[in-house]
Amino acid sequence: MMPIFRRVAVIGKYQRPAAGPAIEGARAIVDDIARFVIAQGCNLALEAETAALLDLTHYPSLDIDGIGRHCDLCLVVGGDGTMLGVGRRLASYGTPLVGINQGRLGFITDIPLDSYQDALQPIFHGEYEEDVRPLMQACVLRDGVCVFEELALNDVVVNRGSTSGMVELRIEVDGAFVANQRADGLIVASPTGSTAYSLSAGGPMLHPSIPGWVLVPIAPHTLSNRPIVLPDASEVAIEVVGGRDISANFDMQSLASLQHGDRILVRRSAHRVCFLHPRGWSYFATLRRKLRWNEGGS
Amino acid sequence: MMPIFRRVAVIGKYQRPAAGPAIEGARAIVDDIARFVIAQGCNLALEAETAALLDLTHYPSLDIDGIGRHCDLCLVVGGDGTMLGVGRRLASYGTPLVGINQGRLGFITDIPLDSYQDALQPIFHGEYEEDVRPLMQACVLRDGVCVFEELALNDVVVNRGSTSGMVELRIEVDGAFVANQRADGLIVASPTGSTAYSLSAGGPMLHPSIPGWVLVPIAPHTLSNRPIVLPDASEVAIEVVGGRDISANFDMQSLASLQHGDRILVRRSAHRVCFLHPRGWSYFATLRRKLRWNEGGS
Amino acid sequence: MMPIFRRVAVIGKYQRPAAGPAIEGARAIVDDIARFVIAQGCNLALEAETAALLDLTHYPSLDIDGIGRHCDLCLVVGGDGTMLGVGRRLASYGTPLVGINQGRLGFITDIPLDSYQDALQPIFHGEYEEDVRPLMQACVLRDGVCVFEELALNDVVVNRGSTSGMVELRIEVDGAFVANQRADGLIVASPTGSTAYSLSAGGPMLHPSIPGWVLVPIAPHTLSNRPIVLPDASEVAIEVVGGRDISANFDMQSLASLQHGDRILVRRSAHRVCFLHPRGWSYFATLRRKLRWNEGGS
Amino acid sequence: MMPIFRRVAVIGKYQRPAAGPAIEGARAIVDDIARFVIAQGCNLALEAETAALLDLTHYPSLDIDGIGRHCDLCLVVGGDGTMLGVGRRLASYGTPLVGINQGRLGFITDIPLDSYQDALQPIFHGEYEEDVRPLMQACVLRDGVCVFEELALNDVVVNRGSTSGMVELRIEVDGAFVANQRADGLIVASPTGSTAYSLSAGGPMLHPSIPGWVLVPIAPHTLSNRPIVLPDASEVAIEVVGGRDISANFDMQSLASLQHGDRILVRRSAHRVCFLHPRGWSYFATLRRKLRWNEGGS
Repeated sequence: MMPIFRRVAVIGKYQRPAAGPAIEGARAIVDDIARFVIAQGCNLALEAETAALLDLTHYPSLDIDGIGRHCDLCLVVGGDGTMLGVGRRLASYGTPLVGINQGRLGFITDIPLDSYQDALQPIFHGEYEEDVRPLMQACVLRDGVCVFEELALNDVVVNRGSTSGMVELRIEVDGAFVANQRADGLIVASPTGSTAYSLSAGGPMLHPSIPGWVLVPIAPHTLSNRPIVLPDASEVAIEVVGGRDISANFDMQSLASLQHGDRILVRRSAHRVCFLHPRGWSYFATLRRKLRWNEGGS
Repeated sequence: MMPIFRRVAVIGKYQRPAAGPAIEGARAIVDDIARFVIAQGCNLALEAETAALLDLTHYPSLDIDGIGRHCDLCLVVGGDGTMLGVGRRLASYGTPLVGINQGRLGFITDIPLDSYQDALQPIFHGEYEEDVRPLMQACVLRDGVCVFEELALNDVVVNRGSTSGMVELRIEVDGAFVANQRADGLIVASPTGSTAYSLSAGGPMLHPSIPGWVLVPIAPHTLSNRPIVLPDASEVAIEVVGGRDISANFDMQSLASLQHGDRILVRRSAHRVCFLHPRGWSYFATLRRKLRWNEGGS
Repeated sequence: MMPIFRRVAVIGKYQRPAAGPAIEGARAIVDDIARFVIAQGCNLALEAETAALLDLTHYPSLDIDGIGRHCDLCLVVGGDGTMLGVGRRLASYGTPLVGINQGRLGFITDIPLDSYQDALQPIFHGEYEEDVRPLMQACVLRDGVCVFEELALNDVVVNRGSTSGMVELRIEVDGAFVANQRADGLIVASPTGSTAYSLSAGGPMLHPSIPGWVLVPIAPHTLSNRPIVLPDASEVAIEVVGGRDISANFDMQSLASLQHGDRILVRRSAHRVCFLHPRGWSYFATLRRKLRWNEGGS
Repeated sequence: MMPIFRRVAVIGKYQRPAAGPAIEGARAIVDDIARFVIAQGCNLALEAETAALLDLTHYPSLDIDGIGRHCDLCLVVGGDGTMLGVGRRLASYGTPLVGINQGRLGFITDIPLDSYQDALQPIFHGEYEEDVRPLMQACVLRDGVCVFEELALNDVVVNRGSTSGMVELRIEVDGAFVANQRADGLIVASPTGSTAYSLSAGGPMLHPSIPGWVLVPIAPHTLSNRPIVLPDASEVAIEVVGGRDISANFDMQSLASLQHGDRILVRRSAHRVCFLHPRGWSYFATLRRKLRWNEGGS
């Protein structure tokens, strides 16, 4: 039986690993996955930078946009951070993603490297759980002009520098004034991001099907400035009112330096990211594993 | 110009107030509002118990169900707690509610008694903000049979007694296992309830348009048992696994005593409650006022 | 070489275990420990109820007070809860305690049953870490008369019943007014109790050498009612101002039903409890193990 | 009757205010206080920079060290931040401080400008409450050498920059390993600092008489990394293990840039700061006012 995904891409980490044994290990892993994909009867495309970095140039390769245009499925080898980056870049193409994780399993990368073949085979033949996640589209407005634009799968974070005091932010939703907050910063997290930085800062978890963002102030001066969940159909605007050395971070991977008067607008993107998981995958089981629920611990 | 609401009910507090001056005060207030309603050209109906309690029997009266069947609008004199009770009882009729508050303004009762006429007049003529809130429908299953059924506008709370240790609860969503939690109790709060008890227990605020409930454990033994927002289209089941002297509270106004093995099922009700507010009312302004944001305080 | 502790008591759990295999298992364990104590050259005393319950009547036995008066060391077989009870009852005698734990290790009972001999031998010969903990002495004043008096090693908790709303409590320290709080309840925790219920309710950990109690409101109505650490040289008074079905719990093991106007006074006891741990024991290592720090988890 | 304080210093804000009306206002205020001090029969000394800045050079002046050596009392005109700076600089001299606050009263500066004369007169004659606060002495060790040394009255904060991810810190107490923490940063707060930044980050309040510091992780990755109160007789060491763009802040007023391997050592200073408050001043009343307890708010 033929796999339902005919053209399958493989992407490794973007950062250049240290040379020597580390890169040899990464090369062997991606090579192994590439052979497996071919053995399943799929057309393989290695992501071009991955291929160059790992010296796997004998395989067909495509750049990210080529993958988006031509592939039916993309295997990502790495952790949640790698997945976030790939997810944002492939979002407009709708290519489904599968995460193969070499280390400790993440919230969204849940196939362990040492048994990836058993997990992938059924997925290739249509046996999978689909897990669709909303994306945020953010832009930084300066004097009414968008000077920076970025997608975020996890969160948009506005925060102060290490040497400065609190930021003061003015929050609006669809033009309605919400609050002025003084704090270390403010996190706007998607359901996907609600189990990342937002959780550390005291935010709730949002089930992936909740059409909302959670705004979580970081160490707010006013103790009643508590997390609030807002509809993702609204436009959230965050204006920089005070503070120094302020920046906006998108998935903590891309950033813009901010000035007083800058407005960060956060909207729901028209695109979404689709992860595929092995049959039987469960969002709640992932929470239990990652948060060590039901282990009898304190 | 005629008011758009033709048949208007007035409901005061349900509990019998202390006799003497207190009841005289309540009588004068409701009498004044009744006269105002009539003066606006509306047909008035006093809620029957209110009329009897306050000795205002010369006005037409209706019981709650009669009000639901026959009235276009219901004025509730009291605080948020009174409003919750009326809201649940009129939910199936869809009668819109307006709250007139004698004391400190609440989250949902926001017309001060001393200027109620100025606030009501425009509302009577169609100048208002509509504020629709979802309701929870909860039932207690014992051996597969529903032994208790109740609506809740704020929250469903399962908790331990004052003399007992933790409860142990098993949480499921649409039949999928979420977690076993040991805690003082568990709150399932609607957006309306998210600014009440849930907030005290560490839950986030949910904007009224968020189609979800937040589950907030009260003093959970496992520190990673954090609030989680679940879609209100799902059925949340809470099973009593351990503990003594456990009960389920609905809006903290109605309660059921629980046994091991009991399952509390929480679903979105087909009904919703509709509050009317004066033009210019804003959910966020209410939060700012109630939570004392932007006051420059610590 | 002779052990430095000559007269050693052994205490098992107080509650009557289920008959049959469970009690047989408990009997075998205590019997084994008793033989070990004798083999070390110590004079053994079984706690009388333990001896009767487990049918180990051929060993010398003493009641708790007899143990306090005559023994140099007391081995407690059980978990943290058992240890709390024994600790309170032996506090006035100053008998040092060692905890042997059959299940998951606790915060204060840290010798695993399956290797207790290796751990105890050095302790018997003076190789141990001393771990001294302060005790709270609490009394309930009604109309100026003490109607209930109890020690607490972990915490004094005032809380509401399962079917009632918030309690209102007035807090004073050495006669100075601190605050009126409305909440589910209030925890006054010692350093020992700061890693128990108090931690679940949002309190900080207090190092055992901190001469203070932490007051932690449970789900407080006012969001700025945060945990506060007070000197244990002060007298903390908690007056019941409002609420129904309220009780005071001492280590969650002993309780008093409260009325409006009752005052719970909490002072440092003149006595302290002394735990002995194997050489190398560390408070921080215990925290790391119990709270799963440094495990790479979320 | 002569005042018990014979030589009284007056210090205004250190930063050069904007010229024009603002500086004129400050000049008039300090001039008024100077005349009042003289009228009370005290010898006045204006702090030299204050005198120069405000063009009040006809009064006797002293630099900070001169004030410490020669004055019995120091009046500080400003907010809590100004007081922190003066407190640190005068700590070694033991000069008692009184805070006169032009704006909203602070936690430690509690004499309102518009009634300062009524408040100061009794203080000058010995009618006051003494409020002694411990100080932290911190140093940054690099390769075993102290490269930065500073006092802190509120807190020592190690934190990440605005554009970088988490810091990883290794915490030790008196050489004993406590934990490795990944977080936005870590606050070590004194009792005085426990109502400042530390409170925003989730820390407890510490009564000024508690001989301890509270360590509060900021947005910690591991949810069980909770605030912990440690004895101030211990040496707390914080080693920078990972992260970029990290700095150490002392009272958020003085800072050191950190490298991997740097160790920040925090010890109790031999010096303490002594604030004088009007008779009847109460720590708890200050908390109630600043945290808006007992206002009936949510």
